[in-house]
Amino acid sequence: MADADWLSERGRDESDWRGMTVACTCVGSMMVDRELFVSAPGKVILHGEHAVVHGKVALAVGLNLRTFLRLRPGKDNGTVEINLPNIGTKLTWKISDLQALVPSFHNSPESKPLGPSPEQLDFLKTFAGFSNGTTDTESLAVLAFLYLYLSICGQALPSLEIVVWSQLPTGAGLGSSAAYSVSIAAALLATSGKISIPAQENIRWTQAELTLINSWAFQGEKVIHGNPSGVDNAVGTWGGALRFQAGEINPIERVPVLEILLTNTCVPRSTKTLVAGVKDKLLKFPGIMEPVLSSINAISEECQRVLQAGVEGLTIEQYSVLEELIDINQHHLNVIGVGHPSLDRLCQATTSHGLHSKLTGAGGGGCAITLLRPDIEPSVVDAVKQELSAYGYQCWRTSIGAPGVSLHSSSMLPEDVTRSFNKA
Amino acid sequence: MADADWLSERGRDESDWRGMTVACTCVGSMMVDRELFVSAPGKVILHGEHAVVHGKVALAVGLNLRTFLRLRPGKDNGTVEINLPNIGTKLTWKISDLQALVPSFHNSPESKPLGPSPEQLDFLKTFAGFSNGTTDTESLAVLAFLYLYLSICGQALPSLEIVVWSQLPTGAGLGSSAAYSVSIAAALLATSGKISIPAQENIRWTQAELTLINSWAFQGEKVIHGNPSGVDNAVGTWGGALRFQAGEINPIERVPVLEILLTNTCVPRSTKTLVAGVKDKLLKFPGIMEPVLSSINAISEECQRVLQAGVEGLTIEQYSVLEELIDINQHHLNVIGVGHPSLDRLCQATTSHGLHSKLTGAGGGGCAITLLRPDIEPSVVDAVKQELSAYGYQCWRTSIGAPGVSLHSSSMLPEDVTRSFNKA
Repeated sequence: MADADWLSERGRDESDWRGMTVACTCVGSMMVDRELFVSAPGKVILHGEHAVVHGKVALAVGLNLRTFLRLRPGKDNGTVEINLPNIGTKLTWKISDLQALVPSFHNSPESKPLGPSPEQLDFLKTFAGFSNGTTDTESLAVLAFLYLYLSICGQALPSLEIVVWSQLPTGAGLGSSAAYSVSIAAALLATSGKISIPAQENIRWTQAELTLINSWAFQGEKVIHGNPSGVDNAVGTWGGALRFQAGEINPIERVPVLEILLTNTCVPRSTKTLVAGVKDKLLKFPGIMEPVLSSINAISEECQRVLQAGVEGLTIEQYSVLEELIDINQHHLNVIGVGHPSLDRLCQATTSHGLHSKLTGAGGGGCAITLLRPDIEPSVVDAVKQELSAYGYQCWRTSIGAPGVSLHSSSMLPEDVTRSFNKA
Repeated sequence: MADADWLSERGRDESDWRGMTVACTCVGSMMVDRELFVSAPGKVILHGEHAVVHGKVALAVGLNLRTFLRLRPGKDNGTVEINLPNIGTKLTWKISDLQALVPSFHNSPESKPLGPSPEQLDFLKTFAGFSNGTTDTESLAVLAFLYLYLSICGQALPSLEIVVWSQLPTGAGLGSSAAYSVSIAAALLATSGKISIPAQENIRWTQAELTLINSWAFQGEKVIHGNPSGVDNAVGTWGGALRFQAGEINPIERVPVLEILLTNTCVPRSTKTLVAGVKDKLLKFPGIMEPVLSSINAISEECQRVLQAGVEGLTIEQYSVLEELIDINQHHLNVIGVGHPSLDRLCQATTSHGLHSKLTGAGGGGCAITLLRPDIEPSVVDAVKQELSAYGYQCWRTSIGAPGVSLHSSSMLPEDVTRSFNKA
């Protein structure tokens, strides 16, 4: 990760989980006495979507559209409040009411999270007044919060007010739920003294602390998604780039940040149907399709090689290779049947301006990334954005390889975030 | 081939080259006493272009844009005339002048053609008054004719008039030179008694006769191209579909005829440069590109399987597979770097009408094929043709899997052919 050097300066035992927990308990306190700002990035798949289902490598990268969280002491010391302005949700509970649930959510501080049991989820649904089969964004977000609050904060529930506001669209395959879970897990772990609260914004958590954040965020993802891969919360936690293959997730040491245009075609799709379609094609034309997956695998490998070689700044030639890999993979994704006319239009529009795009995630609509070289004229980006907006697409100029979960001081927050928090 | 049953009825020894030659000498005579009409198809690569350079399978198919030849006895019995109305060439020589060249072009009737030697070509260039480095279409066509005339007709040169008129554009990778060489070789072999002159139009030459036509046509191709692969003249001779791999050419038994739209983008390209570009990509990204060539190989295999399974008429499902293979290969051809914006436009235009297209041949512009299902509405084809014409492309509604070299009666010639011959 980008902060590997800093981590060794801290001199913590980063490989020993129990050592870390002991070290942390002396840093914070169970009382909330200050304001905390945390953010976590979204995620895009740079290469390897779908191929990863068939045992190939995928590269997932931190997307610098972030979810921001503000944690404050509760006003009256007797309530806990979750406020999600993106979806117009603001709920307050009495801590005395929540206290009754605590015995069912006990995790010993030395053990890793156990994962939400069906009974725990039933308790929470009953408590929050949600029907049993509930799947709407609001209910799932609230359940995940309550689960993490009760599980992390344990027997001495703190009174607090949490606002979570995100730059990420939801349901677009950009890891918005993971960014939500990661920022809640980090804030609750910090405020309850289970991880440190670094004094300076540019100092990040240790690997062991990040591992703890990640494992709790994964539990939050389980509440929301049932059976998540763990990639999204890992990217939300570590940021940068991760290599994902056969269920194993490995952060890639130090990758450069790449400017991109992220576009949401806003065409809805079913990941499940698309994944099934790829499987059908593989069964129908194994001799044709298996080599395509091998080629995608080699694209991910080559991309990782280029990123690692270009960590001090990519050369023009390295940018050209990244563009070429994007073009090739977009063709392959069409071949395996996850393209869409909306994505074809997007690629045509960006190609006509000399830019290179591919779908990211499930395909069949959804989102795409367009690589922007550092020397690109702003007028070109504006023209492309205008063209894509005319198709009804949403466009963000942002970056990938973004840092993972971070603590912020209020003065350093982006303006849109401060505005949203002030209104909340 | 389609006439396999008929061949066995003829009872000829088709595997014995010498046996065939002896059998043939009694069929014709060295005197030209009748009019002959011969045609040979063009060629398109259905799948496997470029991959074939790297040892993969390619499928080449007969294109029903044909080159037609009319052979008549010479008017004054002392001259030979070649008339090529497509390129405005009409040349007449005295047989007494040509007779002096004959000793240099002697091929014993029992032996296979030896191939044009540099000395033979120098003789011909001097005789025809062409400069030594000549490469223009007219000169090469004339040289090939003279070479075949002198080599095939041997010591007793017949007086004749030959008109060759083609529906094929030249220089578009559609095998126009091979169709020319095949039809000249067939007409000269027939008129000089080296192969039979079937009495009925629907009776075709035997395998042994076709083999002889093909080997002479290959010599004509050598005069024109220097070092041809032999695929074009094989398709011009046998028609149908041929499988080509590692220099070996094998006709595929019985394939269905497929309706297509053949489009020439009229964008000029250098096959040599495109082939070199693919090689460079293979060297640059072997792990990414080699699987793509394997996938193309599997496409050719699958296509052959479907064509052979659908010889009695393709099902809707089989048409869908052929369409899918076309789409996949077009993506692959883009991946290996032989696409072109003109081809992208073509694919977009045909896709928007529900049709499936791929480049054929070298790519980088050049020609493309669009598969037409038998139930397609003529209005759709008209609309597509109109759109493509608006881009400045040339379009033909034609077919592939077309029969190879054929003898015709004058009454059965297509109208455009008759008109061209009458004007010639």
